[in-house]
Amino acid sequence: MSLTIKRILEAADILRGKAHVTPVLTSRRLNELAGNDIFCKGEHLQRVGAFKFRGAFHAVSRLSEGQLKQGLITQSSGNHAQALALAGKLHRAAVHIVMPTQAPEVKKQAVTAYGATIHWCDNRQSDRERVLEEVRAQTGAYYIPPYDHPDVITGQGTVALECLDQILDLDVVVAPVGGGGLLGGIALAIKSLRPRIKVFGAEPAGADDAARSLAKGELLPQLQPDTIADGLLTSLGEWTWPLVRDYVDGIVTVEDPAILGSMRLIWGWMKQIVEPSGSVALAAVLGEEFRSQFKGSRIGVVLSGGNVALDFFESRSNLDVP
Amino acid sequence: MSLTIKRILEAADILRGKAHVTPVLTSRRLNELAGNDIFCKGEHLQRVGAFKFRGAFHAVSRLSEGQLKQGLITQSSGNHAQALALAGKLHRAAVHIVMPTQAPEVKKQAVTAYGATIHWCDNRQSDRERVLEEVRAQTGAYYIPPYDHPDVITGQGTVALECLDQILDLDVVVAPVGGGGLLGGIALAIKSLRPRIKVFGAEPAGADDAARSLAKGELLPQLQPDTIADGLLTSLGEWTWPLVRDYVDGIVTVEDPAILGSMRLIWGWMKQIVEPSGSVALAAVLGEEFRSQFKGSRIGVVLSGGNVALDFFESRSNLDVP
Repeated sequence: MSLTIKRILEAADILRGKAHVTPVLTSRRLNELAGNDIFCKGEHLQRVGAFKFRGAFHAVSRLSEGQLKQGLITQSSGNHAQALALAGKLHRAAVHIVMPTQAPEVKKQAVTAYGATIHWCDNRQSDRERVLEEVRAQTGAYYIPPYDHPDVITGQGTVALECLDQILDLDVVVAPVGGGGLLGGIALAIKSLRPRIKVFGAEPAGADDAARSLAKGELLPQLQPDTIADGLLTSLGEWTWPLVRDYVDGIVTVEDPAILGSMRLIWGWMKQIVEPSGSVALAAVLGEEFRSQFKGSRIGVVLSGGNVALDFFESRSNLDVP
Repeated sequence: MSLTIKRILEAADILRGKAHVTPVLTSRRLNELAGNDIFCKGEHLQRVGAFKFRGAFHAVSRLSEGQLKQGLITQSSGNHAQALALAGKLHRAAVHIVMPTQAPEVKKQAVTAYGATIHWCDNRQSDRERVLEEVRAQTGAYYIPPYDHPDVITGQGTVALECLDQILDLDVVVAPVGGGGLLGGIALAIKSLRPRIKVFGAEPAGADDAARSLAKGELLPQLQPDTIADGLLTSLGEWTWPLVRDYVDGIVTVEDPAILGSMRLIWGWMKQIVEPSGSVALAAVLGEEFRSQFKGSRIGVVLSGGNVALDFFESRSNLDVP
């Protein structure tokens, strides 16, 4: 296992015909607002509705037949759980998901729809780890973490290869950063192939460990994250932090209202359903400082996922149709 | 002016580089649910967020310089108003929109953002006509109705040409029907070029004048429409009725809960924001009778528009982000 551009190029071969080559979306009105040419990489249209499928499928496909027979395990209530459930199903491997009992019903259903088995824990980190270890001991299942794993990171890096194929003369790429799997993989790919292109992370101000770590020059974990971008609560890890430190040009932090504002633009103007975490990169690009620094640039923005509960459909009155 | 396939082919030339060639979207899960191969023509991604731009731009582009100088007028609070406002702007023509004072704020803003002038009326048909005639008398503006006009109909028919280009071996095309401009144009195109392909209209049960007219063999207007599909309240017109009568294979009516259900599928699975009127064709295709009749077919479904108020963003609590 290693973190190299060669591994990312191999991942792209492995994902061919398995993952979607997601479209790049543009909007005249968005470009006018931003003062830039913005190219949105639509990973909300990836299988399971998020880029996570790339890393999970790549990591699973690297396992031996013997490992696959013992099954796969992870702990997540988010997009990685769905991604691993589908990746395991496609490899005919049993998948175990450790999930807090408090997780939303829609997340539970999504995982079981792919045939995975849920093992319940409570919300404490210690209990999650206890259940994870128990199931691993019983089954011998191989642990595929949500981001801090070389094959997961290099799988996510394939997003950048597609951006280079699909968008001419890119100046900047901006991707959201939570655990750093997506941003780390993208930065490794871009700086290996086209080092002139700038790479920025976009991070919620309420979970700004990447910004603080980069400023301090050492890995600082996130203690009490608080943001609507529920996919970005996690801290950088041992594999992802060095990538962010060495290859990322900067981290732009954004407040929750700006995240919701950019989400509303994407829904209203681009007619695309993107979740809050998936809207953070656009929020960063629309910030005043970023706009003045990169006026007239060609900017790739990763819309990382689109899984959001649509509960307002339950009550017709909440859906105002004029 | 005439309703011929030649006119539709000319409209496609006129629209080239002006209207978007909208993408065709597919979903594995949708195909599983439907038992068919469904190809969704994404007209919610058209300029102004609806197919209406095609007909409006085509009709305006057929006018003389002298006519354009006197300006354009229509009465609408819906997508046609936005479409004409933009089409007029692109032709440097003044645009007058007659709109009830009760129209939602978002519709007023959309029209004025394109530089059109709003003339207020009240909700009565008689008052709308009074204001329309007054402004026409004052300005000499050319009236472009929302659907009952040959150049509007043939402009909408270009949707079918793109479907034939983009989707191999189509068996059936289903489009929503309100005034019949879209369905009539599509039916004319399909039956002229590939008469073997079936064409169905999808209509809300609460505004089923097309279904009743086709059953009776004569044009029956809609008296008291009641449906969430606010773009389909209108009755067939003098130009559109003969097209529906002569070229459409049938009308499928759907109840409002089925419309909302298919809208939720499109939002949740395809991550696309489509308005209720734009979800009616999918609702028709998912109906039990249609599914059993066309099992295993390749079906083009027109998602006609995506303009829906996103008021739930105002209150964060309404947007449940798990």
